Amino acid sequence: MGRWEPDARDRLVRAALDLFGEQGYENTSVVQIAERAGLTKSTFFRHFRDKREVLFGGQEALAELMTGAIAAAPEDTRPLGLVEAALAAAAAPFTDEQRAIGPRRLVVIAGNDELRERAALKSAGFAVAMTDAMLRRGVAEQEAAVAAQLGVLAFDRSYETWLETGGDLVEVARRVLGDVRATARELTA
Amino acid sequence: MGRWEPDARDRLVRAALDLFGEQGYENTSVVQIAERAGLTKSTFFRHFRDKREVLFGGQEALAELMTGAIAAAPEDTRPLGLVEAALAAAAAPFTDEQRAIGPRRLVVIAGNDELRERAALKSAGFAVAMTDAMLRRGVAEQEAAVAAQLGVLAFDRSYETWLETGGDLVEVARRVLGDVRATARELTA
Repeated sequence: MGRWEPDARDRLVRAALDLFGEQGYENTSVVQIAERAGLTKSTFFRHFRDKREVLFGGQEALAELMTGAIAAAPEDTRPLGLVEAALAAAAAPFTDEQRAIGPRRLVVIAGNDELRERAALKSAGFAVAMTDAMLRRGVAEQEAAVAAQLGVLAFDRSYETWLETGGDLVEVARRVLGDVRATARELTA
Repeated sequence: MGRWEPDARDRLVRAALDLFGEQGYENTSVVQIAERAGLTKSTFFRHFRDKREVLFGGQEALAELMTGAIAAAPEDTRPLGLVEAALAAAAAPFTDEQRAIGPRRLVVIAGNDELRERAALKSAGFAVAMTDAMLRRGVAEQEAAVAAQLGVLAFDRSYETWLETGGDLVEVARRVLGDVRATARELTA
């Protein structure tokens, strides 16, 4: 990634969302995205595998942040504490730019079956990553699965809340997880 | 669906799973599936929209059973009781034939990114269906979302347990939901 294109990635994302909104996701090509951003196709492919990754890039990095935080948590941390650490770690790198484009991103995803499937897999992937990281710490299988499921619900809701309210996504995620936890406690009492 | 092909659907599913196993999902065509089943392509399309639906058919019917059961439950039923009613209704129609082909079905899905995405969307769709049905009864939004999420986790786990152990899927689903509930209670205590 050349020094002369410091904001290439953001420019490509904005160009892609503009085009998806104007002419539809299906009708937009990588070449068009690169052109609109004033960049080359090869620059596009240095940042994204395909046009779908413009909307879902960073999933692996987020999953690694989650698993790393779970692995690094103090030994006596309970499962929902591990999930909280995972969410805080994954929330930390979100930028104002991502918040600015977030609502348009959600509109594009909601309007396309393939993209909604991809989004569902993204959430499922986070659940698997957190579950596996907890299993490696010796958390019981069902505890890990339930805690991860509550965590993914909280993470998805945090993102949507943050798009509306702004603020620090880490704080939003902690608060929403606390709410989800309280709700689960009431439901199962 | 003609009276002369009473088991056409099951024959198509078995033929498809044979071919997916032998030569891969991607390399298998609808024409090949119909031929292997000794049926015509038009018979295939009377039962399935495309080859992917061989693996995921019935999702809408299951979602309707879930929402119907939630709508019909006694007025004072609490959210996890509504989820239990939904799971029991959706579990009831599962057949021995579905149990027989289930393990091969899971292997095919696990081996293909597109199919894993489709499976994730199926689970997400059940969560949305149950959540919406609870909202229509006046359940608070977050309670509905958390209860539905626990329900989907339980339903997925019930199916896998049932493939291993057999028995009545309705009973398995009730038991697994009870386990998930107990785990969530411990985690959030």
